[in-house]
Amino acid sequence: MNQKTKPWIQIKNSKRGFGSDNHSGVHPQILESLSFINEGHAASYGTDDISSEAQGLFKQKFGAQALTQFVFNGTAANVLALRLMCETYNSVLCSDVSHLNVDECGAPEILGLCKLIPLPSKNGKLQLEDLKKAVIRRGDQHFSQVRAISLTQPTELGTVYSFEELKSIISWAKSENLYVHIDGSRFSNAAYLLNKTYRELTTDLGVDVVSFGGTKNGLMFGEAVLILNSDLKKKAPYVRKQLGQLPSKSRFIAAQFIAYFRNDLWKEIGSHSMKMAQELRLRIEGLPGVEVMYPTDSNAVFVKLPQAWIKSLREQFFFYVWDELTFECRLMTSWDTQIDDIIQFSEALKSLSQQNRQREL
Amino acid sequence: MNQKTKPWIQIKNSKRGFGSDNHSGVHPQILESLSFINEGHAASYGTDDISSEAQGLFKQKFGAQALTQFVFNGTAANVLALRLMCETYNSVLCSDVSHLNVDECGAPEILGLCKLIPLPSKNGKLQLEDLKKAVIRRGDQHFSQVRAISLTQPTELGTVYSFEELKSIISWAKSENLYVHIDGSRFSNAAYLLNKTYRELTTDLGVDVVSFGGTKNGLMFGEAVLILNSDLKKKAPYVRKQLGQLPSKSRFIAAQFIAYFRNDLWKEIGSHSMKMAQELRLRIEGLPGVEVMYPTDSNAVFVKLPQAWIKSLREQFFFYVWDELTFECRLMTSWDTQIDDIIQFSEALKSLSQQNRQREL
Amino acid sequence: MNQKTKPWIQIKNSKRGFGSDNHSGVHPQILESLSFINEGHAASYGTDDISSEAQGLFKQKFGAQALTQFVFNGTAANVLALRLMCETYNSVLCSDVSHLNVDECGAPEILGLCKLIPLPSKNGKLQLEDLKKAVIRRGDQHFSQVRAISLTQPTELGTVYSFEELKSIISWAKSENLYVHIDGSRFSNAAYLLNKTYRELTTDLGVDVVSFGGTKNGLMFGEAVLILNSDLKKKAPYVRKQLGQLPSKSRFIAAQFIAYFRNDLWKEIGSHSMKMAQELRLRIEGLPGVEVMYPTDSNAVFVKLPQAWIKSLREQFFFYVWDELTFECRLMTSWDTQIDDIIQFSEALKSLSQQNRQREL
Amino acid sequence: MNQKTKPWIQIKNSKRGFGSDNHSGVHPQILESLSFINEGHAASYGTDDISSEAQGLFKQKFGAQALTQFVFNGTAANVLALRLMCETYNSVLCSDVSHLNVDECGAPEILGLCKLIPLPSKNGKLQLEDLKKAVIRRGDQHFSQVRAISLTQPTELGTVYSFEELKSIISWAKSENLYVHIDGSRFSNAAYLLNKTYRELTTDLGVDVVSFGGTKNGLMFGEAVLILNSDLKKKAPYVRKQLGQLPSKSRFIAAQFIAYFRNDLWKEIGSHSMKMAQELRLRIEGLPGVEVMYPTDSNAVFVKLPQAWIKSLREQFFFYVWDELTFECRLMTSWDTQIDDIIQFSEALKSLSQQNRQREL
Repeated sequence: MNQKTKPWIQIKNSKRGFGSDNHSGVHPQILESLSFINEGHAASYGTDDISSEAQGLFKQKFGAQALTQFVFNGTAANVLALRLMCETYNSVLCSDVSHLNVDECGAPEILGLCKLIPLPSKNGKLQLEDLKKAVIRRGDQHFSQVRAISLTQPTELGTVYSFEELKSIISWAKSENLYVHIDGSRFSNAAYLLNKTYRELTTDLGVDVVSFGGTKNGLMFGEAVLILNSDLKKKAPYVRKQLGQLPSKSRFIAAQFIAYFRNDLWKEIGSHSMKMAQELRLRIEGLPGVEVMYPTDSNAVFVKLPQAWIKSLREQFFFYVWDELTFECRLMTSWDTQIDDIIQFSEALKSLSQQNRQREL
Repeated sequence: MNQKTKPWIQIKNSKRGFGSDNHSGVHPQILESLSFINEGHAASYGTDDISSEAQGLFKQKFGAQALTQFVFNGTAANVLALRLMCETYNSVLCSDVSHLNVDECGAPEILGLCKLIPLPSKNGKLQLEDLKKAVIRRGDQHFSQVRAISLTQPTELGTVYSFEELKSIISWAKSENLYVHIDGSRFSNAAYLLNKTYRELTTDLGVDVVSFGGTKNGLMFGEAVLILNSDLKKKAPYVRKQLGQLPSKSRFIAAQFIAYFRNDLWKEIGSHSMKMAQELRLRIEGLPGVEVMYPTDSNAVFVKLPQAWIKSLREQFFFYVWDELTFECRLMTSWDTQIDDIIQFSEALKSLSQQNRQREL
Repeated sequence: MNQKTKPWIQIKNSKRGFGSDNHSGVHPQILESLSFINEGHAASYGTDDISSEAQGLFKQKFGAQALTQFVFNGTAANVLALRLMCETYNSVLCSDVSHLNVDECGAPEILGLCKLIPLPSKNGKLQLEDLKKAVIRRGDQHFSQVRAISLTQPTELGTVYSFEELKSIISWAKSENLYVHIDGSRFSNAAYLLNKTYRELTTDLGVDVVSFGGTKNGLMFGEAVLILNSDLKKKAPYVRKQLGQLPSKSRFIAAQFIAYFRNDLWKEIGSHSMKMAQELRLRIEGLPGVEVMYPTDSNAVFVKLPQAWIKSLREQFFFYVWDELTFECRLMTSWDTQIDDIIQFSEALKSLSQQNRQREL
Repeated sequence: MNQKTKPWIQIKNSKRGFGSDNHSGVHPQILESLSFINEGHAASYGTDDISSEAQGLFKQKFGAQALTQFVFNGTAANVLALRLMCETYNSVLCSDVSHLNVDECGAPEILGLCKLIPLPSKNGKLQLEDLKKAVIRRGDQHFSQVRAISLTQPTELGTVYSFEELKSIISWAKSENLYVHIDGSRFSNAAYLLNKTYRELTTDLGVDVVSFGGTKNGLMFGEAVLILNSDLKKKAPYVRKQLGQLPSKSRFIAAQFIAYFRNDLWKEIGSHSMKMAQELRLRIEGLPGVEVMYPTDSNAVFVKLPQAWIKSLREQFFFYVWDELTFECRLMTSWDTQIDDIIQFSEALKSLSQQNRQREL
């Protein structure tokens, strides 16, 4: 590193951990893309060549009818999707643990201008029988009319709807004239696990809108809203602008997605973080005191830990306590998780587990 | 450039011009900052060290009470400001040509949840006498109660409120118990022109909230909402999150602002673009057929051109026709505008002007 | 009056005046209708026979395609109209003095979910040339897209658009693919003045939605939103319910409108109040110190009075000071205004005028 | 009835039944009050003497700090309450069967500008332990912050929270700094059952806002929002106006409430309908095939009936099928329900029950 590029700014406290895949930085190939396009002038607000190229890539992956709207973050992607699918007197069925319902600070209702109907979930997944029971009172003006369902894929609990599950839920939704939204901040992981193309998991099944995540998969910022149903396209540019989500230097989001798709980088990123999660689970499952929960289909492992362990563990490796009452914790891997991180963490856990047993004896 | 960093993605059509300061790319020092901090893990959602450091810098510049909320773009910055100042039954006085009124696609009303009252302007500036006449019907429940004024500084027409103008408007506003918002997507240019610190132009005068621009001043993305009135801070984090404006990898906005302030880079960026605008004006003012409008206080020159010239000019240099009826055009310089750009453009204009005269003779 | 019906409740301070046509009570024939239908049970929420009968009457008057939605008040009628015509990224052109713009406390924006663009007016009327200049930037996502115009008929200043004025404005609007809304809280007065049927003034010209007033024309409460454009009907019941405007005992609004139309009571009510306004104008116009303003087409006379007179006059007869700066006052007549009211008021004014002259001499 | 008052309008299809207490007409004493005040002029928008008198009555009943805001219907009353208690990033805890959650067509979210969190209920009542578990993630900007609870009293299932239940829930809410709203469209029935004053059931316990019903208790239209917490008063007039709920001829709501309170008419109305519900339950409970559900604390009896009976029963007496899947039906009595209505209905049911048994034998 020569003088010129010597960092005059640095992350000071860069403790590694399992906090979230947005605690990681930017994948080098994605970062690099930002430098490559940083020359000359380009039209703003998505009318430049790089944005067109990215549009084209998404069309290749999701089908020629796909319209991509880049937005800045995941809340915005979901809100834009809701706004396109719903009138103000419509409801959206979602799981009780969905990000939409519990982590958007009311944005779906206040900005999305619709009502959410949270339904019970199993391992984070909506169940067809619950969905069916929720479609009631059609045409009754007193009742916010159900208009869409929102599936998180992978779910907030790190599980993945199987292809069969998706098919049965989505074909039912279509038969009921409901729109289908996929909240896919880590959608590539599901595609990798299921070994299906993006298109097979969305357009071909009848999905109408996808919130396709970038930031949690190695981008610096930026998500793509994929509008697969042509009836929903017309309003999109105006709604996005009004929501404060029209990027002026749009090319800097577009370039990141181009990098993300180039040489299947998305697979590398997804498969690595998922392999790390498997590795982590393997090393800690069965340790006395550690209760691993849910299937580990994506890049998160959920564990119940004794309350007493949590403070000291978190001093070494950051992670979130998912449920303050039960001490369920979320351990999330990322594109940059190293096997050493896993080893150190599992060793620390082993050590706590052993101390615990000795105390008990 | 070695093999590894050979661009596999490039802007193809990078025609230079005077379209907007968001047609330029990212200033190299700002881009560099993004690489420097791209290592290890950092807490998300603004709780990391880089974000804290940037917060500290803004406190130095605007006063210790300043709370900074990073958001993604200018629409969002303005909407957040409105939401903090207004109840739903409040109005905001703004100029008829303000971005708020004519370029936000209704976001101030629908997302900002308030009413705008557009007032006449002179060279883009609100006039005190018009403001005074607009504060009526206090306590009348039928009338949306005026609660704030929003000044664009520099204005949308490239002019700058003088210190005296600011003082008289803001002190009047305070005497009327109105909040004062500054829409400052190019605020640094005003500070440079007026040779005042940010603080002298805001906090010290009683300004409550500033939309402090980044993207148009050499950043890749990101704006800072400066909340200078402590009464308005409490709601800010929730409202920002709900608006879809909480950046998860917040440090990548923070780092850009750190770079922007480092070694007074902001002055370099501002003064350069402003000097280029002066240069441009100098070279084209007085050309037969060219009518230069408004003082050129910031980095934009407005000119009325004969309709016939516009098409061919725009093929060479992109710029916007500001008013489709009068053929008023906006020529905007930027941190990367070169003297050659100015020369080529003014030569092209001169040539059109001469052809015109010859045709007339 | 026998013991049983002896009032145990009475208006104590029933000073007559020219405050507003909503200061009057309920026309006896309208009040009577409420007693007539007060028996047995009836289905709620508009599904009863009386509501159907009223629907039928409105169809007779506005055309078979008309869908009537009863709501509680005028703000609500206007908001419902806006919601049916606009997406959130649409604007509505209205006059700067329109009720929508200055007397709804921001309801059009916050509840109507659209942007208002107030235009200059002449005697309270929108001018075609101003409307034309406001339809700009079609397809530009940054600009809230103009989608409708709203005409107040009669205007807030007591004037009435002539049939020719309506025709030229509305045919232009249709040519521009804009919806047309009429804010007609006293619409019957316009119909009476112009000697046209409701239908000739609305449906036949291409009007899309009418806020058809009841409360200011002798009803106790209740307005009718006439949806004349079939494309706009579908959302109406849901939006009305959500707006808190679905009357459960709907028949008590419906019955009032049946009474209002029976034997052309609407003409009697309208013509009386308008005649009284003419009478009032006749008696006070030309008095030294009294400046009568605007044509008196409907039931309001606007006068500028010397500030010194206002307090004592208002102690005898209530009326509103319309403009606090110029002391323009609004004198409004009603279905129950008596010629004696006019005589007393004009005598009082004469007396003030004479005192004034004597003081001046 | 003389010629003059011979009805020229009448309810044609006035089949009595148990549809809802808003299928009944207006109580004669309440109707009478409307005639009594229908003379002369009165100030509009709530500034008249009758409105003041009603305000005074509510102060007597709820405490001197009570501010009453009349609105047109129950949806509006609830929405106004929510708007006063909540910021846009707040949630309200309510029961899963609450009117707010299932019968307002999304108005709480879209107009009330907050999020609802529906909780499980037992006989329509919220349970303290469920409420406690829902107050989580305080200060977490990602989570819509719980700010209020809404209790329906009597509940939608015709049950009434006991005084002890109220006390424990409300004192807990206060300890958690949550506002308490009572959705009381039939609140008088609860007061009658519990033999407590309105004040004892609200102000004295710490309730902040009450939606106090009129329309379902013999009024023609009109509800009263009682604002008991002085901190919440300031915004009320503006928010009400903006919501389209400011009645211009306010005295016609006020007079009805004066009648409602005069000579304790409210008790007569409440006790009668509740006695009729008891009578109805008595006569049908235990009939083979009829399953009576929930305690009958107010004026509704819920029964599960064999699907085959419903059509023929509803041809004779209108009532609602409450749950389309289980054929749970709601039988609602009213101030005008006659013992004969009960007898006829129970006889019809008996007859169906006997036919059924014979068929089974």
